[in-house]
Amino acid sequence: MQDISVVLWGLGAMGSGMAEVLAQREGIRIAGAIDQVSMLAKDLGEGLGLGEKLGVVVRDDAEAVLSEVDADICLIATTSFVAENEPQILKAVGHGCNVISIAEEMSYPAASSPEAAERMHQAAYRKGVTILGTGINPGFILDTLIVALTGACSSVERIHARRVNDLSPFGQTVMQTQGVGTDIDEFKRGIQEGEIVGHVGFVESMHLIAEAVGWELDEVKQTRQAIVSEQPRTGESITVEAGKVAGCNHTARGFVGGREVITLEHPQQVDPGAAGVETGDYIEIAGIPDISLAIQPEIPGGIGTVALATNMIPQVVAGSAGLKTMNDLPVPRTLMGDVRRTVQKFEQVL
Amino acid sequence: MQDISVVLWGLGAMGSGMAEVLAQREGIRIAGAIDQVSMLAKDLGEGLGLGEKLGVVVRDDAEAVLSEVDADICLIATTSFVAENEPQILKAVGHGCNVISIAEEMSYPAASSPEAAERMHQAAYRKGVTILGTGINPGFILDTLIVALTGACSSVERIHARRVNDLSPFGQTVMQTQGVGTDIDEFKRGIQEGEIVGHVGFVESMHLIAEAVGWELDEVKQTRQAIVSEQPRTGESITVEAGKVAGCNHTARGFVGGREVITLEHPQQVDPGAAGVETGDYIEIAGIPDISLAIQPEIPGGIGTVALATNMIPQVVAGSAGLKTMNDLPVPRTLMGDVRRTVQKFEQVL
Repeated sequence: MQDISVVLWGLGAMGSGMAEVLAQREGIRIAGAIDQVSMLAKDLGEGLGLGEKLGVVVRDDAEAVLSEVDADICLIATTSFVAENEPQILKAVGHGCNVISIAEEMSYPAASSPEAAERMHQAAYRKGVTILGTGINPGFILDTLIVALTGACSSVERIHARRVNDLSPFGQTVMQTQGVGTDIDEFKRGIQEGEIVGHVGFVESMHLIAEAVGWELDEVKQTRQAIVSEQPRTGESITVEAGKVAGCNHTARGFVGGREVITLEHPQQVDPGAAGVETGDYIEIAGIPDISLAIQPEIPGGIGTVALATNMIPQVVAGSAGLKTMNDLPVPRTLMGDVRRTVQKFEQVL
Repeated sequence: MQDISVVLWGLGAMGSGMAEVLAQREGIRIAGAIDQVSMLAKDLGEGLGLGEKLGVVVRDDAEAVLSEVDADICLIATTSFVAENEPQILKAVGHGCNVISIAEEMSYPAASSPEAAERMHQAAYRKGVTILGTGINPGFILDTLIVALTGACSSVERIHARRVNDLSPFGQTVMQTQGVGTDIDEFKRGIQEGEIVGHVGFVESMHLIAEAVGWELDEVKQTRQAIVSEQPRTGESITVEAGKVAGCNHTARGFVGGREVITLEHPQQVDPGAAGVETGDYIEIAGIPDISLAIQPEIPGGIGTVALATNMIPQVVAGSAGLKTMNDLPVPRTLMGDVRRTVQKFEQVL
């Protein structure tokens, strides 16, 4: 079996992280790299600062790269939204590539964009390839991990999960979308005008959970509240004065028959330790049995997203054709051996 | 679509629990029940004390039940071991039934019994049905849950997990196999003579993890040590004096290239609270990133095993033919809606 050949589309922080991980993996060959700005016309290995060439020149012409490279799979890390992602995915699928996207909305695209989801499913089905959206969240902590835990329950009444994380390592774009550094009036205006968005992915996580356990959601309510800091706080790209906004406490509540059955909270802030807040991922299931889980500190978002996107390659390459979600595929797992053997194993069992 | 029809084989504590759960589920019909002693010739509903008849008489002639009932799946809860389980599984498969077994060794039968695993795989493949072994442990806590967490890691150096549970609710058979109430000399003799066995399933969990992440295990070492109590302890079926054995601390270590990469600990004891021991399920992964997870208290074994065995029905009914493990199938999930819809969903995506 030849190496699994991969095209990387988008070489920001996430795409670059994927490239570094894949460059280490046995049985994987990075066959192409598409990016508009950051590393254009450089060798990918040099662009990443790996100290060695990878023999892949970064190009901005996606059509040309996908035509010239006979890739098994394309990993796309360009956007959070289906509307921007769909044309890219359809282009890769058109060239017979399987696709993994880390666009948050792609983790359950039918939630925001049912028609686009159907178009992508049909295109993938016709071409005999698989499309998957994944990442740490949505994609794992507030959906797949919860779903897996319910597997140990004979019934579930209610799910309450919280992902409490630290925004300190992130750059200016994240600070703006979370409202970090604003005052409370600016924060409220930013929410109204859609410049402060909080977390993208709650609706998708809700749908993943509800579909998996067999609940029909009749409503999802979201609230975004400023986390006003009582202390000065320091992140890598920003300093927040006391009295200013250190982050956004974004909450989503899912209802079945008028009863709140899923509550997901994601308070994201710079330097939570300054306020005595411990980061972590927390899941509480009220059911038979009750389950109370804590992961402390939280699984870091960037590393986790890179891991999930690269680790799901075998399931997607070997999976049946169509648009899939994390509900549909065998459990994710790290890949310490030859990735081709994992692909072959899935080809036998799927 | 007709209800999914289920035959239950074995109506001890686990099989009875499955019957009670399945009697509540929409889209499931209990079509037959096989047991040798406890409920023979009774209506299953009366035997379970449900206060209503289920219209299924418990019989001891497995061949007759399987011949007369055109079941989709047979749930087998009769033994821990492949050697005793294989003839039962082959009988059900021979009648065209999918099979879920909670025999601990069936969670990865190739570990203890590679030839039996191959025979069962071939039989299932020829008949177009699926066989799965599952349960809380092996099957979930010390394998599937660990595997899923590694999915958020770009690499893993070492895995250390502990399941600290309370044997207090269990009966005399469990007390004997764990050596509860013995003195230290009796415990050592019991270990030597194979009457005290500790946990059944470590080798299977090791193989599930190693196969999933792509490690080739060269050795699994196990130790079983007495937990001698400094306090008197009380369980439902036994009282343990101070100085006597309250349980068995069973540990397994898996090596790759001479390096210990997986450590699984399962100290099982009566009334751990008397010694100040908090029960819980704990997973520590050293990798990129490190992950530290705690579930407190532990997910209860009996309820969890009943849940996993009944919750995996859709994956097994819809899955491709052959002998599968939890590594091969979509993540487990509870079933709060019509089970037929979950089966149909899996038939579309698998």
